[in-house]
Amino acid sequence: MVNNKQVILRDYVTGFPKESDLIFNDATVDLSVPAGSNKVLLKNLFLSCDPYMRIRMSKPDPSTAALALPYTPGQPIYGYGVSRVIDSGHPDYKKGDLLWGIVGWEEYSVINPTSSCFKILHTDVPLSYYTGLLGMAGMTAYSGFYEICTPKKGETVFVSAASGAVGQLVGQLAKIMGCYVVGSAGSNEKVDLLKNKFGFDEAFNYKEEKDLNAALKRCFPEGIDIYFENVGGKMLDAVLLNMKLNGRIAVCGMISQYNLEEQEGVRNLSTVIYKRIRLQGFVVSDYYHKYSNFLELVLPYIREGKITYVEDVAEGLEKGPSALIGLFHGKNVGKQLIVVARE
Amino acid sequence: MVNNKQVILRDYVTGFPKESDLIFNDATVDLSVPAGSNKVLLKNLFLSCDPYMRIRMSKPDPSTAALALPYTPGQPIYGYGVSRVIDSGHPDYKKGDLLWGIVGWEEYSVINPTSSCFKILHTDVPLSYYTGLLGMAGMTAYSGFYEICTPKKGETVFVSAASGAVGQLVGQLAKIMGCYVVGSAGSNEKVDLLKNKFGFDEAFNYKEEKDLNAALKRCFPEGIDIYFENVGGKMLDAVLLNMKLNGRIAVCGMISQYNLEEQEGVRNLSTVIYKRIRLQGFVVSDYYHKYSNFLELVLPYIREGKITYVEDVAEGLEKGPSALIGLFHGKNVGKQLIVVARE
Repeated sequence: MVNNKQVILRDYVTGFPKESDLIFNDATVDLSVPAGSNKVLLKNLFLSCDPYMRIRMSKPDPSTAALALPYTPGQPIYGYGVSRVIDSGHPDYKKGDLLWGIVGWEEYSVINPTSSCFKILHTDVPLSYYTGLLGMAGMTAYSGFYEICTPKKGETVFVSAASGAVGQLVGQLAKIMGCYVVGSAGSNEKVDLLKNKFGFDEAFNYKEEKDLNAALKRCFPEGIDIYFENVGGKMLDAVLLNMKLNGRIAVCGMISQYNLEEQEGVRNLSTVIYKRIRLQGFVVSDYYHKYSNFLELVLPYIREGKITYVEDVAEGLEKGPSALIGLFHGKNVGKQLIVVARE
Repeated sequence: MVNNKQVILRDYVTGFPKESDLIFNDATVDLSVPAGSNKVLLKNLFLSCDPYMRIRMSKPDPSTAALALPYTPGQPIYGYGVSRVIDSGHPDYKKGDLLWGIVGWEEYSVINPTSSCFKILHTDVPLSYYTGLLGMAGMTAYSGFYEICTPKKGETVFVSAASGAVGQLVGQLAKIMGCYVVGSAGSNEKVDLLKNKFGFDEAFNYKEEKDLNAALKRCFPEGIDIYFENVGGKMLDAVLLNMKLNGRIAVCGMISQYNLEEQEGVRNLSTVIYKRIRLQGFVVSDYYHKYSNFLELVLPYIREGKITYVEDVAEGLEKGPSALIGLFHGKNVGKQLIVVARE
């Protein structure tokens, strides 16, 4: 038996989460899987902080409970991570394998491998990328952009939360396709990244724009063909006024709304009629069967330096709660992850 | 030269239109087309009152002006009508032809035939149907339901403003396809029509429901696959809470919003993410090339009595303004039209 530090949800959260909503627990774990079990024992190396995790911290809502299961107060929270197999009773996984998938926020996890658990076969790229660029966030960008946005060369693309885990890649994929790409972010440092590191054509700091509609008109004098929606609320309202005919809005997330007790109203929805706009929500897990196609596309670009990725790395599980909460205040610059253990 | 009574927009309208916003003008018209002109002179028989006409009464909005041209104050308003050709300089139209398409609100119109002007070839059905069931409203129901909703047998369908010009047909097409169909309307008389004349499975009077979410839960215990959106605002918000996974919302119109100076906010949009909802606006004119397919489908059903249609008929152009304005207060029962002349 060894110690197994865990991050526990104290109770359901209302409004913005606080560090005190997450508490540490010192559990223990047996470093072998019982004979006859087909479970897998993992040593967690990296954990991913993702906006959807906020939704799981709220009290179950009867209208959505079946869709996004809430965390259980008193139990460890969970999310995507990168882990090493320590022991396995499952025929598909053996000691030493590297995996990415859903694990507890703890040093060691015992899992039943599922369809959203992937073996890591390419280790010539940073292993931490499998918490984001080469994991759930990357697949989100890939499936949302290619499957939902139906992009064409030369189209105009707007990405909100553009320096985040998903937005970085959406923008770069859109540039590779030959689109005009603009991103919004919440600091001048992030805007600088968008323009000078990720190759966006334009970018703006939404916190410094008095009028989002005017900012979008400045960046898109002819209007927006594709909006990759990560934030919701006022930004969506401004975007609706600037969409072109037959525009598409891929609704990936609405991080600006997750901590509000009542969501902001979106007032410009009737523009979808005359502009023939398609607004479509999607969830990445519906596209995981295309993961190998995704890797085939993206790995060469990463190796050639045509796709780059910025990570914000918190060292140690102890930093987990502040890193996760920082995400909802835009404190992270790039993909927020936690190093649990360096091998 | 003969007299030509016209209905003129006095000035741009804010809020609900009043009868005094529309004034009569006694013009004159020459009952022949000048030699060498390719124009067509029409005697207008029926005029159609449609919700989108409210949008054309507002001051031009720079963000939508290119999409929905406003009427010109001091000039006759225009809309869909059914007319007889009196004289024609155009090779495709000859004296005596019946047409439906865009005409002025006046006794006689001179038009340049366009792509949204159709010859009426089937006169064994009521001629007035070409203002609605067999005209723009029918094509709206047909294209919205089959092209945007992608319906399947056995799915659950909700139609708002269900006894209106478009809703009646959407519900009947959905029943023919084998869907479970519920409609909402604004009076018990209309609810009765939905259930007992149009064959909807359920219907409710939204004005008598304290809680639209509860009303929808009662009618759709398993949720809604398809929403045919005609009203917007609070109804859309309640529907979003009741959509099923992979649901589709065809946004045809938002009549509840057209007279508001500031549109109501829709707060439950983030449900589109987890439910993978597609919300799509459409405009009927994009589908007019399918008009003959539409007639092939619908005419036999009308002749066999499998599709029925209720019209609310105002007699005389003098009744035009009150009929049109009544539409925005839900005074009409069924498709609102005006008889300008009976031959």
